[in-house]
Formats: sequence, structure tokens, C-alpha cells
Amino acid sequence: MIPYTLIEKKQAGKALNREEIHFMVNGYVNKDIPDYQMAAFLMAVYFKGMDTEEINAYIDVILNSGKRVEFSDKTSYYVDKHSTGGVGDKISLILAPLAMASGKVKVPMISGRGLGHSGGTLDKLESIPGFRTDLDLKTFKEQTDTIGCALIGQTDDLCPADRVLYALRDVTATVRSIPLICGSILSKKIAEGIQGLVLDVKTGNGAFISEYERSKELAAQLKYFGENYGLSVSPILTDMNQPIGNKIGNWLEVEESLDVLRGGGPESTREISLVLTTEMLALADPERSKKDIRSELEGLLDKGMAYEAFLTIAEKQGADIHFLEHPEKYPVSRYVMEVRTQHSGIISAIDTYQLGLDAIMLGAGRRSIQDKIDPKAGLIIHKHIGDSIGSGELLVTLHTDKAEAAEELSKTIGNRFVIGEETVSKPPYIYEIL
Amino acid sequence: MIPYTLIEKKQAGKALNREEIHFMVNGYVNKDIPDYQMAAFLMAVYFKGMDTEEINAYIDVILNSGKRVEFSDKTSYYVDKHSTGGVGDKISLILAPLAMASGKVKVPMISGRGLGHSGGTLDKLESIPGFRTDLDLKTFKEQTDTIGCALIGQTDDLCPADRVLYALRDVTATVRSIPLICGSILSKKIAEGIQGLVLDVKTGNGAFISEYERSKELAAQLKYFGENYGLSVSPILTDMNQPIGNKIGNWLEVEESLDVLRGGGPESTREISLVLTTEMLALADPERSKKDIRSELEGLLDKGMAYEAFLTIAEKQGADIHFLEHPEKYPVSRYVMEVRTQHSGIISAIDTYQLGLDAIMLGAGRRSIQDKIDPKAGLIIHKHIGDSIGSGELLVTLHTDKAEAAEELSKTIGNRFVIGEETVSKPPYIYEIL
Repeated sequence: MIPYTLIEKKQAGKALNREEIHFMVNGYVNKDIPDYQMAAFLMAVYFKGMDTEEINAYIDVILNSGKRVEFSDKTSYYVDKHSTGGVGDKISLILAPLAMASGKVKVPMISGRGLGHSGGTLDKLESIPGFRTDLDLKTFKEQTDTIGCALIGQTDDLCPADRVLYALRDVTATVRSIPLICGSILSKKIAEGIQGLVLDVKTGNGAFISEYERSKELAAQLKYFGENYGLSVSPILTDMNQPIGNKIGNWLEVEESLDVLRGGGPESTREISLVLTTEMLALADPERSKKDIRSELEGLLDKGMAYEAFLTIAEKQGADIHFLEHPEKYPVSRYVMEVRTQHSGIISAIDTYQLGLDAIMLGAGRRSIQDKIDPKAGLIIHKHIGDSIGSGELLVTLHTDKAEAAEELSKTIGNRFVIGEETVSKPPYIYEIL
Repeated sequence: MIPYTLIEKKQAGKALNREEIHFMVNGYVNKDIPDYQMAAFLMAVYFKGMDTEEINAYIDVILNSGKRVEFSDKTSYYVDKHSTGGVGDKISLILAPLAMASGKVKVPMISGRGLGHSGGTLDKLESIPGFRTDLDLKTFKEQTDTIGCALIGQTDDLCPADRVLYALRDVTATVRSIPLICGSILSKKIAEGIQGLVLDVKTGNGAFISEYERSKELAAQLKYFGENYGLSVSPILTDMNQPIGNKIGNWLEVEESLDVLRGGGPESTREISLVLTTEMLALADPERSKKDIRSELEGLLDKGMAYEAFLTIAEKQGADIHFLEHPEKYPVSRYVMEVRTQHSGIISAIDTYQLGLDAIMLGAGRRSIQDKIDPKAGLIIHKHIGDSIGSGELLVTLHTDKAEAAEELSKTIGNRFVIGEETVSKPPYIYEIL
């Protein structure tokens, strides 16, 4: 087989067979196929797609490039949640300990870092001093079985093909491809050894795939191919036309998560956490009513049990929980600037994508691989779609050590909000559960 | 500017501005932009095209990446021909000395090597012992002015951006893109310092662009953008549904060219050479009738003047003209195998692309950059479309030193010819002059 011929075949919109897909991916992992040929191939896939057989083969070859976790406790139900990524998405930090606190499921969660305009669970966890996310697979398994949850980053031995492919897609504008997303997400989730998977598929102007129909197609494909591998998959389409909750930025999002874990926090963050965690438990026990599950989970939040579970995980993974118990003692950014509106009205739209980039500019994310994240940095939005705002009222608070970024954004960040005169209904948090 | 953003922009089908095109090409040449990002960008261009402004900017940046030849003799007309490439296309070897022999024009010709399934003029010239194609630009200019023609390969200082871009396109299946072809061909031809350019745009199953309408679009675009730069451009659509003439392979094609230069040779090779050379002289003197030009050129072939011109060029460029005067003394391949048909009928189609690959397999071209060409290797086809053939009649002669390739092809090469029962009209050599 010749890589050139396979690039041409995909370019012409033809399907590659299983051997050809394996040849391309393994060839790239083994460095027999150079990155420029793989980049051309991935761009051809972006334009021409993959059929069912190709996607199956693609998931397979990534999955088989590394180890696969196998849990020995056959009486437990192992379940995870994956989000396609957005702005202010701190749901995993609440959902994982909440599910653990229920005692009904075990949550072996492998998360990623910030990407493009979106944040990453791993970066958020690492804003907690001492929190280690680099556990090896053995420790990961043991902790999941002992306390019910472990929160780690991708290891070297799990789907190594995904790591190299993802790094290439990330710099060649080939992330937003449904077959490639399916391959990347499902291979890793299948390798985790879980039985159930809740998928939070974001749609809207802050999602990687913004159009509703395409998001829904992605959700359907993820369900189809996940179930193909024997997973129970529950995809949920959720709104990303505005950030989740109020806080964007790593430690700021931990703060908001702590609020929710203690029974408080913004309604959107609490609601999405409850709906997604309910789905996780429903996968483990399909007979039980979701209403019943939800009211149990509400109790766990309100009684502080989910918060306690989070402290348990954090302590187990080396964190200094002092800051979780006393978040007010965490260092604060040098510049905390309040941005107020010039005119009054009703917020009709928010440029969520741009707010994600703004947070990165303040230091909350990486603009290049070498960049170091400032865990304190980020922003707080005080108004959402449908809220009315008076002239001179507080719209955004910026947190940053970067004088220049603070200066610039204090002038421009107001433009991310469209303020009109007509009444606007608040968008739903959840669109549909597939 | 960020390369990622520009890849995304092109991927979305948006036009890049002049600065953005320059940023991408110069960034790649300077190695600021890695090859995988350029490969993804080129594949996006393949799918989404470029508009007029983009193509102008693309030609410009390639042209300005190196030196530009300027001829000081303002009384001469400098004209070249470029072919988009095919199988058995030895026209340059005849046309250049023929035009030179007329004394009406000067021919500064910079040619390329074999590519994919097609042969290259440079490889053909280098099959002549001693023939040097690596003249520097100064010698190239002097020889063109002194004797009227020079035949060289691309130099390091002429359009270096094209060289790196072409090498990348060649391995990422992004050669067959009209805007990229325009940029590559025209930048080099403008840099040659010519005033007139005849373009032989091939169409059919042995051409890089096989569909007639797309070939015609390429021809029209080349004319439009060439004229934009002040060139007189005459594009001619010619047939590539069968090889030109009978011989395919480097020295074999020199042999056939010598036959035509001496007034003989296959009709197709002579006809295409005459039509294209007539166009070159017509560009120099639009008042003169083409009929008149053609009859002059026929005379130059028939009287051996074009042949003499070829010897002059070859001698000037270091060749041992002994072999040109006595081609029968050139070494012959170890295996010369005759392939005969099993059944009789009329040839209705020839898989020209595959015959090109077959010639490479016999040693006439490179399968990888490291491969060495065997100048003797190739094949001779004895029948063309529309010819009738009897059972057991000679179809192809193979020339090779490779026992295995000879063995294999002697069994399969007959399949490149579709033999039917119905009368088939011979395809024209020339479709249209735009």
C-alpha cells in the first residue's frame, strides 16, 4: 500500500477498507508515514467524510494502538461522561464526585486539556495546588475501585495513536470532523473499561460544531458507534450559545464547582450537572425513574455529600484541600477589573467563542504549546441571554496578571454581548436527550 | 497572522487576501510554517479553489521568491512551450530545435523531470551521453542569445518557492488543482524572461487532468493569468487518450524525436510538433499566416535543418553527438520482449495512464526519489486507437534490464488495450486552439 494512493482515494470520496485505514494510522504512529501526508489525508477526510465501515476501522486501530483498562469488579457499573467542549464547562468537576457520592456507580474519568477556545478539565483540576492527574493506569484502576472515582489525564499507554493524531488535527484545522471526533472520543472511552457513557454534545456559537443539525448528527454517530462496541451510550444535546454558569478560567471554575457541590452556585451549572449525572445513574439502573434519581442527587448536593466526595478524590490525588475548604485564601490576580455597560437593554446574544479566546488572552489557556497557564486568570460574566441590564451596570469582571490584556479587553469585551431592546427568552440548558 | 486561521479560512471556502497568501508561501519557504500545515492548506485549496486575486497573489509570491531572467536583445522574440504532461510526450525535443532552426524566435526552455506516470524532458535529454542540463542562468541566457536555444532544468535561484511547494504537492495528492498548477507553471515561465508561451494542455486518460471541460478550464485560466503578466499565451488542447507516437521511455523517445527531426517518424509526433511550433512562430509574428509558417517548418524537418539545430544544441551542452548520429549504436536493454495479441479486432481504447506506469516499472522512471532511471528502458506500442489487429500480431515491445518486470508485463500489458469488433474512428491529435 502507498500512502499517496490512499490520500487520492479519500480525496476522490471513495471508502478505504479496514486494512487501508489501519495502514494509514499505524503508519503514522510508527513514523513510516510523514506528518504532511497524514495532514493531507485528514483534510481529505474532513471534506469527504468516512462511511460506517471506515469509522469502525478507525476507532479499532486507535483503540488497539495501546492498552485497555479492565476492571475486575464485575458487580460495579463503570460509567463516564464526555463533553465535546465549550466555554465555562466545569460540569465534570461536579458530576464525577456527585455520581461517586451516590455509591451507585464508579467513575473512571480520563480528561483532556484546554483546546482552541475551550477549557479542559485537566487544567482546571491542576489549578488545585498539589492535585496530580498523571496517575498510571494501575493506580487509576485501584483508586476507582477503592473510592469510586479517579480523575486523570491521558496516559502514554492508552490510545497513543489518538494522541499523535489529535496533536496533528489540532494544528491543521481538522478537529471539526465527525468521523475523526468519533474515532478520538470513542477509542479513549472504550479503552477506559467503562460500560456506560453519557455524552454532552454541545451546540451553539461556543461549541466546536455550532450548527444544531450537525451536532445532532455527531451525537447520533457517537451513540451508534459506541453501542457497536457494547457501550451503553446516552447523548444529550446541550446549549453552548453562552458560557455555562458565570465563571470562566481554571481556578475560577473550581470555585464555582465548589459552590454547586455545596448546594449553591448558578442555576445553569447545577441544572446541567444534575441532568447529566442523572443520565449516568440511569444507565446503571434503567429500571429506576429519572425523577427518583434526580431527587437523590439534589439531596447529595444540598447535604454536601458531593462536596465531601470531591475532597476525598482531591486528597487521594495529592491536593492541598485547604484551598478547597477555604477558596477565599487562593491567590487573586493582580488586576481585577470591572467592565460595565454603556447602554441599557436586554442581552440577546453572547459571542461565546470569543469569550473563550478572551479568557485565554487573560492567561487562562495556552496560545502555543509552550505557554504556561495562569490558574487564577479568567473572567466572570454577570449577565446572560435574556437578562436586562441598566446603563453602567456590571457586565464582566476580568482576572489577570497581564496589564496589557486587561487594558485591551476592558475596552472590547463588552462587544461580545449583543444588547437589544426587545424581550428575549432565555435559551434552554438542555435541548434533547437522544 | 496565524497559519491555523488561514487554513480554516480556506477550508470554509473564503478567499485569502494578498498578504495572507504571501504569508503562507513565504512562511513555508522560510520554514516558519511546518509542512503538515502547508499540506493541510494545499488540500483545502484543492477542495475550495482560489479566486482571481488569490491566484494573482500566489503566482506573484512564487515568482518573487527568486531571480528573473531578463534578455538584453530587444530585437528577438523569446518564446517557450509548456506541456501539462503525458505519456510519450517528446514534443519539446523536436519543437525547440525546429523553432530555433527557423531563426524567427529564440527558445529559452526550462523543463522538468518525470512525475507520477508521465515522463520529463530533462530525463529524456539526459539519456543522451554527456548532455548537461544543469547550466546556470548566465550560461542559459548566453546560449539562448548565441545559438537561439538552450534546454535546461530548474535552477536553484529561479522560483525556489515552486520547488518546495511542488515537492510537497507531489506527495500529498495536491498536484491536480487548477490554481496551484497556474501558480507553478506561470511563475516559472514568467521568470524565464519570455514574451510568448504556447501551452500544450493535455486531456484524456493519460493526462493529469483527464476531463475535457476541466482541461479547458485550466487552459483558459493559464491564458488569463499569463496575459495578466504581459505574456502572449496560446493554449492548445491536445489528446492524451493514447501515447504520442510509438515510443515511451527516455532514449527510445530521443530515437523517435531524431526520426521526426530528420523528416520521418510517426505521424502523430510530427503533426503535434508542427502545430505547436507553428503557434510559437505565430506568437512572434501574428501577421504571418499559419499555413505559411507551417510549410516553412515542414521544410526544415524534411531538409534536416531541425536535426542540425538539435545537434548544435546537444554539442553546445556537452553531449556526445555520435549517438545522435548513430542511434543504432546506443546500448540496448537486456530483455527486448515482443507482446502479441491473443485475439483480433479493432483497438477502441488504451489505458494511457497505466502504460505510463508500466514504462516506469520497466526502469524508465522513478518510483521513489532515490530510484535511478535506466535510459534504455521503455516500451514501443505498435498499434493505436482505431487500428485493426490480427490474432498473434505484434502489439507492444518491452525494453528492460529487469527480468521480473519483463516477465510480469509481458502477461499483463496486453490488457491496457481494449480490442473490440466495431470500427472506431481515430481520435484527433489536436482538439482546439484557444
